[in-house]
Amino acid sequence: MRKGAIQAPPEEEVIRRLEEFGRRIAESVLKGEEPVIEVPVRTLANTIWDEKRKLLVLGPKKALRSYFDIGESKKFMQTLLMLSLILRARREGDYPTIRDLYYTGKHTIYYIDEAGRRRSEETWDDQRESNSVIQDIEVAVNLLREHMGIMHDAKGKIVGNMVIRSKGYEIDLSRMGSGAYAIPPNVDKLEIVSVDAEYVLVVEKDAIFERLNEEEFWKKNRCILVTGKGQPDRSTRRMVRRLWEEFNLPVYVLTDADSYGFYIYSVYRSGSISLSYESERLATPGARFLGVAVSDIERYKIPKNFIIKATERDIKRAKELLSYPWFKESKAWVRELELFIERGEKVEIEALSGHGFKFLSQTYIPEKISTGSFLY
Amino acid sequence: MRKGAIQAPPEEEVIRRLEEFGRRIAESVLKGEEPVIEVPVRTLANTIWDEKRKLLVLGPKKALRSYFDIGESKKFMQTLLMLSLILRARREGDYPTIRDLYYTGKHTIYYIDEAGRRRSEETWDDQRESNSVIQDIEVAVNLLREHMGIMHDAKGKIVGNMVIRSKGYEIDLSRMGSGAYAIPPNVDKLEIVSVDAEYVLVVEKDAIFERLNEEEFWKKNRCILVTGKGQPDRSTRRMVRRLWEEFNLPVYVLTDADSYGFYIYSVYRSGSISLSYESERLATPGARFLGVAVSDIERYKIPKNFIIKATERDIKRAKELLSYPWFKESKAWVRELELFIERGEKVEIEALSGHGFKFLSQTYIPEKISTGSFLY
Repeated sequence: MRKGAIQAPPEEEVIRRLEEFGRRIAESVLKGEEPVIEVPVRTLANTIWDEKRKLLVLGPKKALRSYFDIGESKKFMQTLLMLSLILRARREGDYPTIRDLYYTGKHTIYYIDEAGRRRSEETWDDQRESNSVIQDIEVAVNLLREHMGIMHDAKGKIVGNMVIRSKGYEIDLSRMGSGAYAIPPNVDKLEIVSVDAEYVLVVEKDAIFERLNEEEFWKKNRCILVTGKGQPDRSTRRMVRRLWEEFNLPVYVLTDADSYGFYIYSVYRSGSISLSYESERLATPGARFLGVAVSDIERYKIPKNFIIKATERDIKRAKELLSYPWFKESKAWVRELELFIERGEKVEIEALSGHGFKFLSQTYIPEKISTGSFLY
Repeated sequence: MRKGAIQAPPEEEVIRRLEEFGRRIAESVLKGEEPVIEVPVRTLANTIWDEKRKLLVLGPKKALRSYFDIGESKKFMQTLLMLSLILRARREGDYPTIRDLYYTGKHTIYYIDEAGRRRSEETWDDQRESNSVIQDIEVAVNLLREHMGIMHDAKGKIVGNMVIRSKGYEIDLSRMGSGAYAIPPNVDKLEIVSVDAEYVLVVEKDAIFERLNEEEFWKKNRCILVTGKGQPDRSTRRMVRRLWEEFNLPVYVLTDADSYGFYIYSVYRSGSISLSYESERLATPGARFLGVAVSDIERYKIPKNFIIKATERDIKRAKELLSYPWFKESKAWVRELELFIERGEKVEIEALSGHGFKFLSQTYIPEKISTGSFLY
């Protein structure tokens, strides 16, 4: 793979794949066959942990949606409706949001039932239904929805010694001043022209990102600084993945020491259950957890009154994490999670500023990286 | 005022004002006087609607916090503690977050009470207490916390024909490609070098921002495109205010047609109750509401099944808005809110895509602006 090249398939290819999907169905109708859509099943039961690749991926189960099966014909029609909307948008160069697609496709179908009564049915009742169909199309045509020009909220920010090209403009992410580059929905359409950095630092919290950016941490430490603002969205995850995959950069994730933070790390690293069909493109199996770790409470002498008592929900969540294979197979993580459950204590990143405002950037992060004290 | 010049006071001035605040207290102690802090009261009762300037502002009430008053001495000490932390950060060039300040100042004070019992007290128990003291210092020294180098989450994004300067770099906001410029916490430290636009379009929803950006709406319509992602933060509001004030640009706000959207518009325009002491710097009294208006349901023939039933909470909120002077004094808004309450219907921006994906950008927005169909 050429380093940093555009990863999105060209528009014509997107249109071709969408048309091909529709053509197969049309042809079977014309041949007098039963029209059927084959879609990989996106349920927890069909989500498997690929131990070798360290990824949550979709299993082999596929569902056949037949137009003639009364229980499936609605989903069948929804899929074709959505396909036609997406294809129309691509042909006309539009960039609808997932909510736009929901509204555009939403209409009432009137029909006469077998008892002769006039009845009506909505094409879909809420956005969960239309989103689910978009996901079906994603897996069926093997394209991210971003590749299909579908828009959504984008939370991520990035700065560092790195040049990208987008819409013909070269953008130097080391020249954003006090601001940052807001990561666009379709990261694969960016060309990464050059990267001059030793690692990627992903911080959970936006305020910490702002602070490290204002201090020019990334310049002094030759790193790329990223935030996904809590639970990261697809675009932020895709950006981190590309930096790891195409530039072989180590990726460190910095979160609070609590179940929520641990899970955020694992989403960057292994993928999320609900988007397991995209892990291959979104997850960064090489990501490491920099902290804050429960063991840091002792190691960095976090004062007692900075420690927050874990709630029952935190503990319950930590026990769930312990049952996930991608935590379970790591001895270090099992120790960490057991320690968390045993102590029932959580700590925020900001608690480190008890040692001075410079402690996080001048001691904690560099020390953790240089001594290799991270979990994975 | 020079157009687009840096609005933040220089570092030395910030330090001088903070020191001055502390020096006044120290001097009164040295003179044997009762140490007292005078702070404008930041309560609803002391928030007034300035009809002439169309702003929510703080009233004239001030509170005297005396060290010798047992009910106030804790707040007095908290204020001095926070002052010393902020001053230390400024002198050493650090950029703590509000959460960092909370932790750094948090410690336990042990003392012997009048009955000879050993007791203890936390400097503050939660961040509300430390944030409140930061706000007191803001009004006391007449500086935004951003001017004092205090960091926080920053949600806003901006693109358009506009060049800014930050940390010595010139940043051209028309060359962000599919991404955007993430607005930094301290907007006043940006120099706005040039703006080539006819108006500012503020969109409530990030996904709509992404879509309009991908379509290059701002280029085709010569505008500056901004989003504050729902309820805007201080930095986004300050950016919009500066574009209006320093460049005389009309500002149009586009939200959903519901009480929540109407309130977002009013926060941009008039300020929020909780930050009324900052309205003079954050509000944009010239902002206009572009839509979606309740009357648009008829005007733009929004299909019945795109209309969402307003909840009781929506209606209650709309009634509250009707009682706010900045809505009450506008006949158009009274009509709008009464219509909303009467119909009990809300509509999202995306419902407009029922008329096609291009309808919002090629018909709705330009038509509303050119025919002057906005509310204020």
